[in-house]
Amino acid sequence: MTNSPKEGQPAPRAAPKPHEPGCEHEVSFTRRVPTGDTLARDICERCGFIHYDNPKIVVGSVVTHDGKFLMCRRAIEPRKGYWTLPAGFMEHGETTEEGARREAREEANADIRIRDLLAVYSIPRIAQVQLMYRAELALPDFSAGAESLEVALFAWEEIPWKELAFPSVYWALMQFHSVMDKAVITPSGNPEGESGNAFPRIRSENPL
Amino acid sequence: MTNSPKEGQPAPRAAPKPHEPGCEHEVSFTRRVPTGDTLARDICERCGFIHYDNPKIVVGSVVTHDGKFLMCRRAIEPRKGYWTLPAGFMEHGETTEEGARREAREEANADIRIRDLLAVYSIPRIAQVQLMYRAELALPDFSAGAESLEVALFAWEEIPWKELAFPSVYWALMQFHSVMDKAVITPSGNPEGESGNAFPRIRSENPL
Repeated sequence: MTNSPKEGQPAPRAAPKPHEPGCEHEVSFTRRVPTGDTLARDICERCGFIHYDNPKIVVGSVVTHDGKFLMCRRAIEPRKGYWTLPAGFMEHGETTEEGARREAREEANADIRIRDLLAVYSIPRIAQVQLMYRAELALPDFSAGAESLEVALFAWEEIPWKELAFPSVYWALMQFHSVMDKAVITPSGNPEGESGNAFPRIRSENPL
Repeated sequence: MTNSPKEGQPAPRAAPKPHEPGCEHEVSFTRRVPTGDTLARDICERCGFIHYDNPKIVVGSVVTHDGKFLMCRRAIEPRKGYWTLPAGFMEHGETTEEGARREAREEANADIRIRDLLAVYSIPRIAQVQLMYRAELALPDFSAGAESLEVALFAWEEIPWKELAFPSVYWALMQFHSVMDKAVITPSGNPEGESGNAFPRIRSENPL
């Protein structure tokens, strides 16, 4: 069961442009430890503004329907063409659950019902905290949003294990599988010893 | 059981200086929706840098010892002089649990052992997501860190309910109390109908 993009959708978001070190917009900044702080920050020496750059929150879900898993093939970098779960950066003005529902709408045109929190992953290298929920399709409709090439429901054994976009997609699916029959769960953190810098070794084997 | 600050500690961190609208460091920025995006962002029109400003993560804990609750009286604004739980902004290069342990060290000179995730609170007005853990003192030692006027262990009925710093301090304590005898818990979200903009009405009464 696969659906490709709807017509008339906005162009996929471009990959974010990196900060250009020479640009005038940051000439007044120096990197130093503010008074009373313990870490170096970018500080504007003209007006005293301190740019606190903290980790960002990704909100997403393992969405099931009739025992199958909703997955999206990425239309954008990074990992364009690989399969992921509906997830993305949390925005201002929303709760974490609202953010996870919005991402399912944006990436899979899917209306989901959130059940509970499955996992909290910390990926220090890219300064992300990922909150992954257990969810179900509220309606059996879905299709590729602007950031997806296609969206599909996979039975567990059909999941494209060798074409997963990120280690945390693998973690979340495995975690979901391990607690599938439990009504009340403690959200997991990263798998033991995993920082998200590489796929776990087991990925190249059949995870079942 | 109360401890006041150790000598020889750094000065408390100053309240963050607000962004100064007229400052040269931001003259090249305009606020508009980038191509393919759906929300307005600050964009540097010279180099194309897009400033994605997303919610920040606060990590903290309800720390108990011999059935009492570890609390810190704030030495800094906002809510200087009011009581809080050891918690603060997550930093780069750490996991959420490491951040919660660091905050207990910084604010209460306390070494804590994290048990599990108690709650995930979303406070859209101030763009915060708070991850609050259940934890215990690993050692029975604590004292006020640079951002605390004093640190104390309170029995439940001794908690200074009328002098709590933030609504989420109240939420976390009440949530802890409601699951105190449970080994496995589903982390709660915000209490029904609460956005964190005001203290719940019940606060002025005895919460027991």
